[in-house]
Amino acid sequence: MLATWTIHPLLRDQETAIQARIDQKTKPLGALGRLEEIACQLALIQQQDQVAITKPTLLVFAADHGIAGHGISIAPSAVTRQMVLNFLAGGAAVNCFCQASQMTLKVIDAGILEPIADPRLIQQRLGRCSGDISIEAAMTPEQLQQGLDYGRQIANEQIAAGCNLLAFGEMGIGNTSPAAALLAAMTGLPLAACVGRGTGIDDAQLIRKKALLTQALNRVGQQSDPLVLLRELGGFEIAQITGAILGAAEQRITLLIDGFIVTAAAMLAVRIAPACRDYMIFSHGSAESGHGMMLESLRARPLLDLGLRLGEGTGAALALPLLRAACSFYNDMASFSSAGVTV
Amino acid sequence: MLATWTIHPLLRDQETAIQARIDQKTKPLGALGRLEEIACQLALIQQQDQVAITKPTLLVFAADHGIAGHGISIAPSAVTRQMVLNFLAGGAAVNCFCQASQMTLKVIDAGILEPIADPRLIQQRLGRCSGDISIEAAMTPEQLQQGLDYGRQIANEQIAAGCNLLAFGEMGIGNTSPAAALLAAMTGLPLAACVGRGTGIDDAQLIRKKALLTQALNRVGQQSDPLVLLRELGGFEIAQITGAILGAAEQRITLLIDGFIVTAAAMLAVRIAPACRDYMIFSHGSAESGHGMMLESLRARPLLDLGLRLGEGTGAALALPLLRAACSFYNDMASFSSAGVTV
Repeated sequence: MLATWTIHPLLRDQETAIQARIDQKTKPLGALGRLEEIACQLALIQQQDQVAITKPTLLVFAADHGIAGHGISIAPSAVTRQMVLNFLAGGAAVNCFCQASQMTLKVIDAGILEPIADPRLIQQRLGRCSGDISIEAAMTPEQLQQGLDYGRQIANEQIAAGCNLLAFGEMGIGNTSPAAALLAAMTGLPLAACVGRGTGIDDAQLIRKKALLTQALNRVGQQSDPLVLLRELGGFEIAQITGAILGAAEQRITLLIDGFIVTAAAMLAVRIAPACRDYMIFSHGSAESGHGMMLESLRARPLLDLGLRLGEGTGAALALPLLRAACSFYNDMASFSSAGVTV
Repeated sequence: MLATWTIHPLLRDQETAIQARIDQKTKPLGALGRLEEIACQLALIQQQDQVAITKPTLLVFAADHGIAGHGISIAPSAVTRQMVLNFLAGGAAVNCFCQASQMTLKVIDAGILEPIADPRLIQQRLGRCSGDISIEAAMTPEQLQQGLDYGRQIANEQIAAGCNLLAFGEMGIGNTSPAAALLAAMTGLPLAACVGRGTGIDDAQLIRKKALLTQALNRVGQQSDPLVLLRELGGFEIAQITGAILGAAEQRITLLIDGFIVTAAAMLAVRIAPACRDYMIFSHGSAESGHGMMLESLRARPLLDLGLRLGEGTGAALALPLLRAACSFYNDMASFSSAGVTV
């Protein structure tokens, strides 16, 4: 039996009081724009007089994908493992940005081709590579369940250690393909609109990618059950991210959602348990073309638009300081009356 | 005689090497988007193998404006002083954001109605209030020169103390009026397109604001000399910000330009000494309608778009972490060869 989820929607009874507190700050009404929304959401999630971000943690899940064997990425699958080694050595963009943002980074092997024996790498392998979705399911029912469980479990571990904000990132050569297929299958949008160039494939590769994903969608047929779609069209990292999102939302933790692949998992999570949407903040609008449609379907506006198209959770690490700034003004900014400023 | 400025354009001879270094980082070409531009610009400015931001400092210049007597703002001029007291007490948005971003904040009295005797407030008063630009020049030639000198001097003091990034903010009830008038006068754009609602005036106030600024522009007539425009249509804080921008550019320091009023000063500075544009990074696109036109005229794209319309330099404090992230990846991210990642 697949995991069930107990996620409570945000209690909104304090929303008016929270907004009134923001409106009493020494600034014109609404003058802090998006940061006011973020402060309000954090206050609703945390239900505390003072909001805070404690032990913010970015979980980067890595996995390989059978469909990558068709050469529809700029790099071969071997690069997934090489990049995981790079993460462990501290040399990737996400390492730099986590360090700059004082964010903890954890790297999880969700199923890359060749394992890496390194105590810093969290072993949650569902296999050595997901199935080639153009011809077969990405994973078995057992792998799906294990993936969701692993995700929930690692989220709970971070939360138990004091983390109250979880962000998600990924590494997996070929994983814009399952994300695009999931987007098309969940929304009914034309596949051609959902498929992009990933990190920079050429025209011939793009044509092949579309053909393979058309095959995948035809194979699966009309399906609306998100768990079926995840099993058929997903990937090991996408399954674990979905489980981690749902597990963290069960614990009423803020979720920082970044990039095309993570947002596909967020869409699945919202279809599995809609209340988890309340806990999501979106960090960066990816340059990958389908990401805008994902965000629209989630009624989400990301905080940043810097033209990134790297994944890894890089946008989440870059957005974290804005969340801290929102906490800071919500907690510490003077009110008109306390500062003696004429309304 | 007015100050003259010696500003060197950026040396571009290292640009190809800098871009090659960025392209060798373990990421697809261009995948860090805007942060790659920022890293390249910082490397060109600093001319060092490792780039760094040291003692970043936000200078907030406060002043009052004669035109505010016509009631074209949501608050009376007395609020300028009240907000300066709020800055000194640490209660404003910009205090919170500077603290969150580990940025030094300095507040300057450039000419508010009633002085404040507080050793934390930097006294650079050009008077108690600039002239009502609808009927008279904002300042005398002596005030203009003193304002530019004060700006250069305070920039130099920060740089001498180890600061290599200066950001600018302002506080002055009514100061969207001079900024809008300067935009119209410098670009020839219709005044109606340049004037906005500031922090939230109503329709009647907006009509009055446009009428007064039409009067101001008619009074000045066709004028392209930026120093004449600054003297006729500016304000004490705008004059000092212009001087500080030019003074910092003389010292080859990175300039973080934020908001509608500061960008008006940046436009003046670029017209006075075009090379200073090379040192500017733009932090946030203001919700004030004319800001987009200013940015376009400077061929500038701000890093953030968070719907802020507060001034104070708030957007600069929020953008600083992105600059640190750019330094971090430029300095510390592995190359394909060092990380053993297949190109």
